[in-house]
Amino acid sequence: MRNIKLKIEYEGTGYAGWQCQRPQVKTIQQVLETALRRIFQRKIKIVASGRTDAGVHAICQVANFKVASNITPRKLQNALNGVLPDDIVITGVEDEGEGFNSRFSVKSKIYRYTILNRDYPSALLRKVSYFYPHRLDIRLMLKESRALLGRHNFSSFQASGSKVRSASRTIKKIRVFKDGSLVHIDIEADGFLYNMVRNIAGTLIEVGRGRFPAGSLKRILRLKDRRLAGPTAPARGLCLMKVRY
Amino acid sequence: MRNIKLKIEYEGTGYAGWQCQRPQVKTIQQVLETALRRIFQRKIKIVASGRTDAGVHAICQVANFKVASNITPRKLQNALNGVLPDDIVITGVEDEGEGFNSRFSVKSKIYRYTILNRDYPSALLRKVSYFYPHRLDIRLMLKESRALLGRHNFSSFQASGSKVRSASRTIKKIRVFKDGSLVHIDIEADGFLYNMVRNIAGTLIEVGRGRFPAGSLKRILRLKDRRLAGPTAPARGLCLMKVRY
Repeated sequence: MRNIKLKIEYEGTGYAGWQCQRPQVKTIQQVLETALRRIFQRKIKIVASGRTDAGVHAICQVANFKVASNITPRKLQNALNGVLPDDIVITGVEDEGEGFNSRFSVKSKIYRYTILNRDYPSALLRKVSYFYPHRLDIRLMLKESRALLGRHNFSSFQASGSKVRSASRTIKKIRVFKDGSLVHIDIEADGFLYNMVRNIAGTLIEVGRGRFPAGSLKRILRLKDRRLAGPTAPARGLCLMKVRY
Repeated sequence: MRNIKLKIEYEGTGYAGWQCQRPQVKTIQQVLETALRRIFQRKIKIVASGRTDAGVHAICQVANFKVASNITPRKLQNALNGVLPDDIVITGVEDEGEGFNSRFSVKSKIYRYTILNRDYPSALLRKVSYFYPHRLDIRLMLKESRALLGRHNFSSFQASGSKVRSASRTIKKIRVFKDGSLVHIDIEADGFLYNMVRNIAGTLIEVGRGRFPAGSLKRILRLKDRRLAGPTAPARGLCLMKVRY
Protein backbone atom coordinates (compact mmCIF):
# COMPACT_ATOMS: atom_id res chain seq x y z
CA MET A 1 0.00 0.00 0.00
CA ARG A 2 1.27 3.46 -0.87
CA ASN A 3 0.56 6.48 1.31
CA ILE A 4 0.06 9.39 -1.08
CA LYS A 5 0.10 13.05 -0.10
CA LEU A 6 -1.78 15.62 -2.17
CA LYS A 7 -1.30 19.39 -2.14
CA ILE A 8 -4.53 21.08 -3.11
CA GLU A 9 -5.45 24.62 -4.15
CA TYR A 10 -9.13 25.53 -4.16
CA GLU A 11 -11.52 28.40 -4.41
CA GLY A 12 -14.04 27.58 -1.69
CA THR A 13 -16.82 29.87 -3.00
CA GLY A 14 -18.93 27.08 -4.46
CA TYR A 15 -18.45 24.53 -1.68
CA ALA A 16 -19.90 23.71 1.73
CA GLY A 17 -16.32 23.47 3.00
CA TRP A 18 -13.83 20.61 3.05
CA GLN A 19 -16.27 18.30 4.73
CA CYS A 20 -19.85 18.61 5.86
CA GLN A 21 -22.23 16.42 7.85
CA ARG A 22 -25.26 17.33 5.75
CA PRO A 23 -25.67 15.12 2.71
CA GLN A 24 -26.73 16.68 -0.61
CA VAL A 25 -24.24 19.54 -0.32
CA LYS A 26 -21.06 19.68 -2.38
CA THR A 27 -17.78 19.52 -0.44
CA ILE A 28 -14.15 19.58 -1.52
CA GLN A 29 -13.48 16.19 0.08
CA GLN A 30 -16.42 14.60 -1.71
CA VAL A 31 -15.40 15.97 -5.12
CA LEU A 32 -11.81 14.79 -4.57
CA GLU A 33 -12.89 11.34 -3.43
CA THR A 34 -15.13 11.03 -6.49
CA ALA A 35 -12.17 11.97 -8.72
CA LEU A 36 -9.92 9.40 -6.99
CA ARG A 37 -12.61 6.74 -7.34
CA ARG A 38 -12.80 7.43 -11.06
CA ILE A 39 -9.06 7.05 -11.43
CA PHE A 40 -8.49 4.04 -9.17
CA GLN A 41 -11.86 2.35 -9.76
CA ARG A 42 -12.39 1.83 -6.04
CA LYS A 43 -13.59 3.78 -3.05
CA ILE A 44 -10.86 5.92 -1.48
CA LYS A 45 -11.04 7.82 1.80
CA ILE A 46 -8.88 10.92 2.16
CA VAL A 47 -7.79 12.74 5.33
CA ALA A 48 -6.94 16.46 5.24
CA SER A 49 -4.79 18.58 7.57
CA GLY A 50 -8.06 19.97 8.88
CA ARG A 51 -11.45 21.06 7.67
CA THR A 52 -11.98 24.41 6.05
CA ASP A 53 -15.38 26.07 6.32
CA ALA A 54 -17.86 26.83 3.58
CA GLY A 55 -16.45 29.57 1.36
CA VAL A 56 -12.88 29.37 2.74
CA HIS A 57 -10.08 29.00 0.19
CA ALA A 58 -6.76 27.15 0.17
CA ILE A 59 -3.50 27.83 -1.61
CA CYS A 60 -2.03 24.66 -0.15
CA GLN A 61 -4.31 22.26 1.72
CA VAL A 62 -2.68 18.88 2.37
CA ALA A 63 -4.46 15.52 2.35
CA ASN A 64 -3.41 11.88 2.13
CA PHE A 65 -4.86 8.50 1.24
CA LYS A 66 -3.70 4.92 0.92
CA VAL A 67 -3.87 2.94 -2.29
CA ALA A 68 -2.25 -0.01 -4.01
CA SER A 69 -1.22 1.30 -7.42
CA ASN A 70 1.93 1.93 -9.41
CA ILE A 71 0.83 5.19 -11.08
CA THR A 72 3.61 7.81 -11.01
CA PRO A 73 2.97 10.96 -8.90
CA ARG A 74 3.11 13.13 -12.03
CA LYS A 75 0.59 10.97 -13.89
CA LEU A 76 -1.74 10.92 -10.90
CA GLN A 77 -1.55 14.73 -10.65
CA ASN A 78 -2.40 15.15 -14.33
CA ALA A 79 -5.19 12.57 -14.16
CA LEU A 80 -6.74 14.27 -11.12
CA ASN A 81 -6.49 17.75 -12.64
CA GLY A 82 -8.07 16.30 -15.77
CA VAL A 83 -11.21 15.16 -13.95
CA LEU A 84 -11.52 17.78 -11.18
CA PRO A 85 -13.58 20.95 -11.69
CA ASP A 86 -11.41 24.00 -12.34
CA ASP A 87 -11.91 25.48 -8.85
CA ILE A 88 -9.97 22.55 -7.33
CA VAL A 89 -6.39 21.94 -8.49
CA ILE A 90 -3.81 19.38 -7.37
CA THR A 91 -0.57 21.33 -7.03
CA GLY A 92 1.58 18.43 -5.81
CA VAL A 93 1.61 14.66 -5.36
CA GLU A 94 4.22 12.84 -3.25
CA ASP A 95 4.72 9.42 -1.71
CA GLU A 96 5.01 9.52 2.08
CA GLY A 97 6.08 6.97 4.67
CA GLU A 98 3.51 4.63 6.17
CA GLY A 99 3.19 6.68 9.36
CA PHE A 100 2.37 10.00 7.69
CA ASN A 101 -1.10 11.33 8.50
CA SER A 102 -1.95 14.76 7.09
CA ARG A 103 -4.02 15.56 10.15
CA PHE A 104 -2.03 14.15 13.06
CA SER A 105 1.46 14.84 11.69
CA VAL A 106 0.83 18.62 11.40
CA LYS A 107 3.47 20.80 13.12
CA SER A 108 1.78 24.07 12.24
CA LYS A 109 -0.60 25.69 9.79
CA ILE A 110 -0.56 29.17 8.31
CA TYR A 111 -3.78 30.99 7.52
CA ARG A 112 -4.15 34.38 5.86
CA TYR A 113 -7.13 36.67 6.34
CA THR A 114 -7.45 39.35 3.62
CA ILE A 115 -9.36 42.60 4.03
CA LEU A 116 -9.98 44.98 1.13
CA ASN A 117 -9.75 48.32 2.91
CA ARG A 118 -10.79 51.11 0.56
CA ASP A 119 -13.93 53.13 -0.17
CA TYR A 120 -15.31 50.88 -2.90
CA PRO A 121 -15.37 47.11 -3.48
CA SER A 122 -13.32 45.16 -6.06
CA ALA A 123 -14.70 43.23 -9.02
CA LEU A 124 -11.56 41.14 -9.40
CA LEU A 125 -10.90 40.38 -5.72
CA ARG A 126 -14.48 40.07 -4.52
CA LYS A 127 -14.30 36.32 -3.87
CA VAL A 128 -10.99 36.28 -2.04
CA SER A 129 -11.25 39.30 0.27
CA TYR A 130 -13.57 40.90 2.79
CA PHE A 131 -14.52 44.40 1.70
CA TYR A 132 -14.35 46.69 4.72
CA PRO A 133 -14.57 50.38 3.77
CA HIS A 134 -13.87 52.03 7.15
CA ARG A 135 -10.42 53.33 7.97
CA LEU A 136 -8.26 50.83 9.88
CA ASP A 137 -5.31 51.65 12.13
CA ILE A 138 -2.96 48.88 11.01
CA ARG A 139 -0.23 49.74 13.51
CA LEU A 140 -2.67 49.38 16.39
CA MET A 141 -3.95 46.09 14.99
CA LEU A 142 -0.39 44.78 14.75
CA LYS A 143 0.45 45.97 18.27
CA GLU A 144 -2.66 44.42 19.80
CA SER A 145 -2.19 41.17 17.86
CA ARG A 146 1.07 40.51 19.71
CA ALA A 147 -0.93 39.65 22.86
CA LEU A 148 -2.00 36.47 21.06
CA LEU A 149 1.54 35.16 20.52
CA GLY A 150 2.49 32.05 22.47
CA ARG A 151 0.46 29.38 24.22
CA HIS A 152 -2.99 30.48 25.42
CA ASN A 153 -6.48 29.26 26.02
CA PHE A 154 -8.30 30.69 22.97
CA SER A 155 -11.88 30.10 24.24
CA SER A 156 -12.74 33.75 23.56
CA PHE A 157 -12.01 33.18 19.86
CA GLN A 158 -13.71 29.84 19.51
CA ALA A 159 -17.10 29.46 17.79
CA SER A 160 -19.72 29.57 20.54
CA GLY A 161 -21.04 26.12 21.26
CA SER A 162 -17.98 24.22 20.06
CA LYS A 163 -16.75 21.46 22.29
CA VAL A 164 -13.12 20.49 22.25
CA ARG A 165 -11.12 18.85 24.99
CA SER A 166 -8.74 21.76 25.27
CA ALA A 167 -8.88 25.28 23.88
CA SER A 168 -5.12 25.74 24.31
CA ARG A 169 -3.18 26.48 21.17
CA THR A 170 0.19 28.05 20.39
CA ILE A 171 0.36 30.97 17.98
CA LYS A 172 3.91 30.95 16.65
CA LYS A 173 3.69 33.98 14.38
CA ILE A 174 1.18 36.70 13.70
CA ARG A 175 1.59 39.50 11.17
CA VAL A 176 -0.71 42.34 10.17
CA PHE A 177 0.43 44.24 7.11
CA LYS A 178 -0.76 46.36 4.20
CA ASP A 179 -0.27 45.63 0.50
CA GLY A 180 -1.88 48.50 -1.41
CA SER A 181 -5.54 48.54 -0.38
CA LEU A 182 -5.29 45.03 1.03
CA VAL A 183 -4.66 44.28 4.68
CA HIS A 184 -3.39 40.78 5.42
CA ILE A 185 -3.47 39.03 8.79
CA ASP A 186 -1.16 35.98 8.73
CA ILE A 187 -1.35 33.56 11.63
CA GLU A 188 0.81 30.48 12.16
CA ALA A 189 -0.26 28.14 14.97
CA ASP A 190 0.12 24.50 15.97
CA GLY A 191 -3.64 24.20 15.61
CA PHE A 192 -6.77 26.30 15.32
CA LEU A 193 -10.12 26.13 17.09
CA TYR A 194 -13.29 26.29 15.03
CA ASN A 195 -13.64 29.82 13.56
CA MET A 196 -10.54 30.97 15.46
CA VAL A 197 -8.89 32.91 12.61
CA ARG A 198 -12.14 34.54 11.54
CA ASN A 199 -12.91 35.53 15.14
CA ILE A 200 -9.41 36.96 15.62
CA ALA A 201 -9.74 38.84 12.29
CA GLY A 202 -13.16 40.20 13.29
CA THR A 203 -11.75 41.34 16.63
CA LEU A 204 -8.66 42.94 15.09
CA ILE A 205 -10.91 44.82 12.67
CA GLU A 206 -12.83 46.26 15.65
CA VAL A 207 -9.47 47.26 17.16
CA GLY A 208 -8.36 48.91 13.89
CA ARG A 209 -11.66 50.73 13.67
CA GLY A 210 -11.05 52.17 17.15
CA ARG A 211 -13.91 50.37 18.86
CA PHE A 212 -11.75 48.46 21.33
CA PRO A 213 -9.23 50.33 23.50
CA ALA A 214 -5.53 49.37 23.62
CA GLY A 215 -5.01 46.25 25.75
CA SER A 216 -8.34 44.75 24.69
CA LEU A 217 -6.94 41.61 23.09
CA LYS A 218 -4.98 40.71 26.20
CA ARG A 219 -8.10 41.20 28.30
CA ILE A 220 -10.45 39.30 25.95
CA LEU A 221 -8.00 36.39 25.85
CA ARG A 222 -7.75 36.28 29.65
CA LEU A 223 -11.50 36.36 30.27
CA LYS A 224 -12.18 33.33 28.00
CA ASP A 225 -15.57 34.62 26.92
CA ARG A 226 -16.55 34.53 23.24
CA ARG A 227 -19.06 37.36 23.76
CA LEU A 228 -16.25 39.84 24.46
CA ALA A 229 -14.48 39.34 21.12
CA GLY A 230 -15.53 40.90 17.81
CA PRO A 231 -17.78 39.33 15.19
CA THR A 232 -16.73 36.40 12.99
CA ALA A 233 -15.23 37.88 9.81
CA PRO A 234 -16.70 36.45 6.56
CA ALA A 235 -15.34 33.18 5.14
CA ARG A 236 -14.35 34.63 1.76
CA GLY A 237 -11.40 36.54 3.28
CA LEU A 238 -9.82 33.38 4.68
CA CYS A 239 -7.23 31.20 2.96
CA LEU A 240 -5.18 28.23 4.20
CA MET A 241 -1.69 29.10 2.96
CA LYS A 242 0.61 26.34 4.18
CA VAL A 243 0.77 23.25 6.37
CA ARG A 244 4.09 22.36 8.00
CA TYR A 245 5.01 18.79 8.96
CA MET B 1 -24.74 69.73 -18.47
CA ARG B 2 -22.02 68.00 -16.50
CA ASN B 3 -19.44 65.76 -18.16
CA ILE B 4 -18.82 62.92 -15.73
CA LYS B 5 -15.87 60.53 -15.91
CA LEU B 6 -16.14 57.03 -14.43
CA LYS B 7 -13.29 54.70 -13.57
CA ILE B 8 -14.47 51.12 -13.79
CA GLU B 9 -13.06 47.79 -12.62
CA TYR B 10 -14.61 44.64 -14.03
CA GLU B 11 -14.18 40.93 -14.31
CA GLY B 12 -15.04 40.30 -17.95
CA THR B 13 -15.69 36.55 -17.59
CA GLY B 14 -19.48 36.81 -17.74
CA TYR B 15 -19.73 39.49 -20.45
CA ALA B 16 -19.67 39.70 -24.23
CA GLY B 17 -17.16 42.55 -23.84
CA TRP B 18 -17.59 46.28 -23.35
CA GLN B 19 -19.92 46.58 -26.32
CA CYS B 20 -21.32 44.13 -28.82
CA GLN B 21 -23.35 44.43 -31.99
CA ARG B 22 -25.44 41.34 -31.31
CA PRO B 23 -28.51 42.03 -29.24
CA GLN B 24 -29.49 39.60 -26.44
CA VAL B 25 -25.95 39.32 -25.11
CA LYS B 26 -24.87 41.00 -21.88
CA THR B 27 -22.21 43.72 -22.19
CA ILE B 28 -20.48 45.93 -19.64
CA GLN B 29 -21.70 49.09 -21.38
CA GLN B 30 -25.30 47.89 -21.39
CA VAL B 31 -25.25 46.97 -17.69
CA LEU B 32 -23.67 50.34 -16.83
CA GLU B 33 -26.17 52.28 -18.95
CA THR B 34 -29.03 50.41 -17.27
CA ALA B 35 -27.61 51.35 -13.85
CA LEU B 36 -27.27 55.03 -14.88
CA ARG B 37 -30.80 55.00 -16.23
CA ARG B 38 -32.09 53.70 -12.90
CA ILE B 39 -30.28 56.44 -11.03
CA PHE B 40 -31.02 59.41 -13.33
CA GLN B 41 -34.41 58.19 -14.58
CA ARG B 42 -33.45 58.89 -18.18
CA LYS B 43 -31.55 57.23 -20.99
CA ILE B 44 -27.80 57.86 -20.79
CA LYS B 45 -25.19 57.01 -23.41
CA ILE B 46 -21.66 56.36 -22.21
CA VAL B 47 -18.40 56.39 -24.16
CA ALA B 48 -15.41 54.31 -23.03
CA SER B 49 -11.68 54.71 -23.76
CA GLY B 50 -12.12 51.75 -26.07
CA ARG B 51 -13.90 48.44 -26.26
CA THR B 52 -12.62 45.40 -24.46
CA ASP B 53 -13.41 41.96 -25.89
CA ALA B 54 -15.55 39.22 -24.41
CA GLY B 55 -13.81 37.83 -21.32
CA VAL B 56 -11.24 40.65 -21.04
CA HIS B 57 -10.94 42.36 -17.62
CA ALA B 58 -10.24 45.92 -16.53
CA ILE B 59 -8.62 47.32 -13.41
CA CYS B 60 -9.27 50.82 -14.67
CA GLN B 61 -11.43 51.32 -17.72
CA VAL B 62 -12.49 54.96 -18.21
CA ALA B 63 -15.83 56.13 -19.59
CA ASN B 64 -17.77 59.39 -19.62
CA PHE B 65 -21.32 60.63 -20.09
CA LYS B 66 -23.21 63.91 -19.97
CA VAL B 67 -26.05 64.60 -17.60
CA ALA B 68 -27.85 67.48 -15.92
CA SER B 69 -27.82 66.64 -12.22
CA ASN B 70 -26.38 67.93 -8.98
CA ILE B 71 -25.56 64.59 -7.38
CA THR B 72 -22.09 64.61 -5.76
CA PRO B 73 -19.43 62.34 -7.29
CA ARG B 74 -19.21 60.29 -4.09
CA LYS B 75 -22.97 59.76 -3.94
CA LEU B 76 -23.10 58.77 -7.58
CA GLN B 77 -20.29 56.26 -7.02
CA ASN B 78 -22.10 54.68 -4.08
CA ALA B 79 -25.43 54.66 -5.90
CA LEU B 80 -23.88 52.97 -8.94
CA ASN B 81 -22.02 50.38 -6.86
CA GLY B 82 -25.30 49.74 -5.05
CA VAL B 83 -27.14 48.78 -8.23
CA LEU B 84 -24.34 47.22 -10.31
CA PRO B 85 -23.64 43.47 -10.18
CA ASP B 86 -20.56 42.66 -8.09
CA ASP B 87 -18.33 41.92 -11.09
CA ILE B 88 -18.51 45.60 -12.15
CA VAL B 89 -17.32 48.25 -9.70
CA ILE B 90 -17.05 52.03 -10.05
CA THR B 91 -13.65 52.90 -8.57
CA GLY B 92 -13.82 56.65 -9.25
CA VAL B 93 -16.17 59.44 -10.32
CA GLU B 94 -14.94 62.89 -11.38
CA ASP B 95 -16.30 65.94 -13.16
CA GLU B 96 -14.44 66.76 -16.35
CA GLY B 97 -14.39 69.79 -18.65
CA GLU B 98 -16.87 69.98 -21.51
CA GLY B 99 -14.26 68.90 -24.07
CA PHE B 100 -13.23 65.68 -22.34
CA ASN B 101 -14.03 62.54 -24.30
CA SER B 102 -12.82 59.26 -22.81
CA ARG B 103 -12.17 57.85 -26.26
CA PHE B 104 -10.71 60.74 -28.20
CA SER B 105 -8.77 62.37 -25.38
CA VAL B 106 -6.68 59.22 -24.70
CA LYS B 107 -2.90 59.77 -24.68
CA SER B 108 -2.06 56.14 -24.03
CA LYS B 109 -3.42 52.91 -22.60
CA ILE B 110 -1.67 50.19 -20.65
CA TYR B 111 -2.68 46.57 -21.01
CA ARG B 112 -1.30 43.61 -19.09
CA TYR B 113 -1.30 40.06 -20.37
CA THR B 114 -0.84 37.44 -17.62
CA ILE B 115 0.41 33.89 -18.20
CA LEU B 116 0.41 31.27 -15.46
CA ASN B 117 3.58 29.37 -16.31
CA ARG B 118 3.85 26.24 -14.18
CA ASP B 119 3.06 22.53 -14.54
CA TYR B 120 -0.48 22.70 -13.14
CA PRO B 121 -3.33 25.22 -13.33
CA SER B 122 -4.56 27.52 -10.53
CA ALA B 123 -7.98 27.40 -8.87
CA LEU B 124 -7.73 30.96 -7.57
CA LEU B 125 -6.24 32.63 -10.68
CA ARG B 126 -8.06 30.63 -13.34
CA LYS B 127 -10.20 33.51 -14.54
CA VAL B 128 -7.47 36.14 -14.72
CA SER B 129 -4.58 34.26 -16.31
CA TYR B 130 -3.78 32.03 -19.24
CA PHE B 131 -2.44 28.69 -18.04
CA TYR B 132 0.53 27.75 -20.18
CA PRO B 133 2.50 24.80 -18.78
CA HIS B 134 5.49 24.74 -21.15
CA ARG B 135 8.79 26.31 -20.16
CA LEU B 136 9.19 29.89 -21.37
CA ASP B 137 12.46 31.73 -21.92
CA ILE B 138 11.47 35.08 -20.43
CA ARG B 139 14.75 36.81 -21.30
CA LEU B 140 14.33 35.93 -24.95
CA MET B 141 10.71 37.14 -24.88
CA LEU B 142 11.85 40.44 -23.36
CA LYS B 143 14.67 40.82 -25.88
CA GLU B 144 12.41 40.09 -28.87
CA SER B 145 9.65 42.34 -27.55
CA ARG B 146 11.94 45.38 -27.89
CA ALA B 147 11.52 45.20 -31.69
CA LEU B 148 7.96 46.41 -31.16
CA LEU B 149 8.93 49.64 -29.40
CA GLY B 150 8.21 52.86 -31.27
CA ARG B 151 5.96 53.70 -34.19
CA HIS B 152 5.18 50.80 -36.54
CA ASN B 153 2.54 49.39 -38.80
CA PHE B 154 1.14 46.57 -36.66
CA SER B 155 -0.84 44.82 -39.42
CA SER B 156 0.82 41.52 -38.51
CA PHE B 157 -0.73 41.71 -35.06
CA GLN B 158 -4.17 42.87 -36.10
CA ALA B 159 -7.15 40.51 -36.14
CA SER B 160 -7.44 39.17 -39.67
CA GLY B 161 -10.28 40.83 -41.53
CA SER B 162 -10.27 44.07 -39.51
CA LYS B 163 -10.43 47.26 -41.43
CA VAL B 164 -8.96 50.42 -39.99
CA ARG B 165 -7.72 53.45 -41.84
CA SER B 166 -4.21 53.06 -40.51
CA ALA B 167 -2.52 50.20 -38.70
CA SER B 168 0.22 52.50 -37.36
CA ARG B 169 0.51 52.71 -33.59
CA THR B 170 3.23 53.75 -31.17
CA ILE B 171 4.28 51.35 -28.44
CA LYS B 172 5.80 53.52 -25.73
CA LYS B 173 6.75 50.80 -23.27
CA ILE B 174 6.83 47.05 -23.26
CA ARG B 175 7.88 44.87 -20.34
CA VAL B 176 8.02 41.10 -19.92
CA PHE B 177 8.66 39.95 -16.36
CA LYS B 178 8.14 37.10 -13.94
CA ASP B 179 6.33 37.27 -10.59
CA GLY B 180 6.50 33.80 -9.06
CA SER B 181 4.79 31.47 -11.54
CA LEU B 182 3.17 34.39 -13.34
CA VAL B 183 4.62 36.04 -16.43
CA HIS B 184 3.29 39.51 -17.18
CA ILE B 185 3.52 41.33 -20.50
CA ASP B 186 2.80 45.03 -20.01
CA ILE B 187 2.28 47.18 -23.09
CA GLU B 188 1.70 50.91 -23.21
CA ALA B 189 0.67 52.37 -26.57
CA ASP B 190 -1.13 55.40 -27.96
CA GLY B 191 -3.73 52.99 -29.32
CA PHE B 192 -4.27 49.32 -30.05
CA LEU B 193 -5.60 47.50 -33.08
CA TYR B 194 -8.25 44.84 -32.63
CA ASN B 195 -6.70 41.82 -30.82
CA MET B 196 -3.26 43.47 -30.93
CA VAL B 197 -2.20 42.68 -27.35
CA ARG B 198 -3.47 39.12 -27.51
CA ASN B 199 -1.69 38.57 -30.83
CA ILE B 200 1.55 40.02 -29.48
CA ALA B 201 1.20 37.84 -26.34
CA GLY B 202 0.54 34.75 -28.45
CA THR B 203 3.58 35.51 -30.58
CA LEU B 204 5.85 36.19 -27.59
CA ILE B 205 4.73 32.87 -26.09
CA GLU B 206 5.87 31.11 -29.28
CA VAL B 207 9.19 32.97 -28.97
CA GLY B 208 9.55 31.93 -25.32
CA ARG B 209 8.74 28.36 -26.20
CA GLY B 210 11.58 28.39 -28.74
CA ARG B 211 9.42 28.04 -31.80
CA PHE B 212 10.46 31.32 -33.41
CA PRO B 213 14.16 32.12 -33.89
CA ALA B 214 15.74 35.33 -32.56
CA GLY B 215 14.86 38.30 -34.79
CA SER B 216 11.40 36.89 -35.59
CA LEU B 217 9.40 39.77 -34.14
CA LYS B 218 11.29 42.32 -36.21
CA ARG B 219 10.71 40.24 -39.31
CA ILE B 220 7.01 39.55 -38.62
CA LEU B 221 6.42 43.27 -38.01
CA ARG B 222 8.16 44.22 -41.27
CA LEU B 223 6.26 41.72 -43.42
CA LYS B 224 2.81 43.00 -42.29
CA ASP B 225 1.22 39.58 -42.56
CA ARG B 226 -1.02 38.30 -39.76
CA ARG B 227 -0.35 34.70 -40.78
CA LEU B 228 3.31 34.97 -39.74
CA ALA B 229 2.56 35.90 -36.10
CA GLY B 230 1.58 33.46 -33.35
CA PRO B 231 -1.97 32.56 -32.31
CA THR B 232 -4.29 34.95 -30.45
CA ALA B 233 -3.76 34.33 -26.71
CA PRO B 234 -7.01 33.75 -24.74
CA ALA B 235 -9.04 36.72 -23.50
CA ARG B 236 -8.96 35.73 -19.82
CA GLY B 237 -5.26 36.67 -19.53
CA LEU B 238 -5.86 40.25 -20.68
CA CYS B 239 -6.56 43.24 -18.44
CA LEU B 240 -6.83 46.96 -19.19
CA MET B 241 -4.72 48.49 -16.42
CA LYS B 242 -4.71 52.23 -17.03
CA VAL B 243 -5.75 54.95 -19.45
CA ARG B 244 -3.67 58.13 -19.58
CA TYR B 245 -5.13 61.46 -20.68
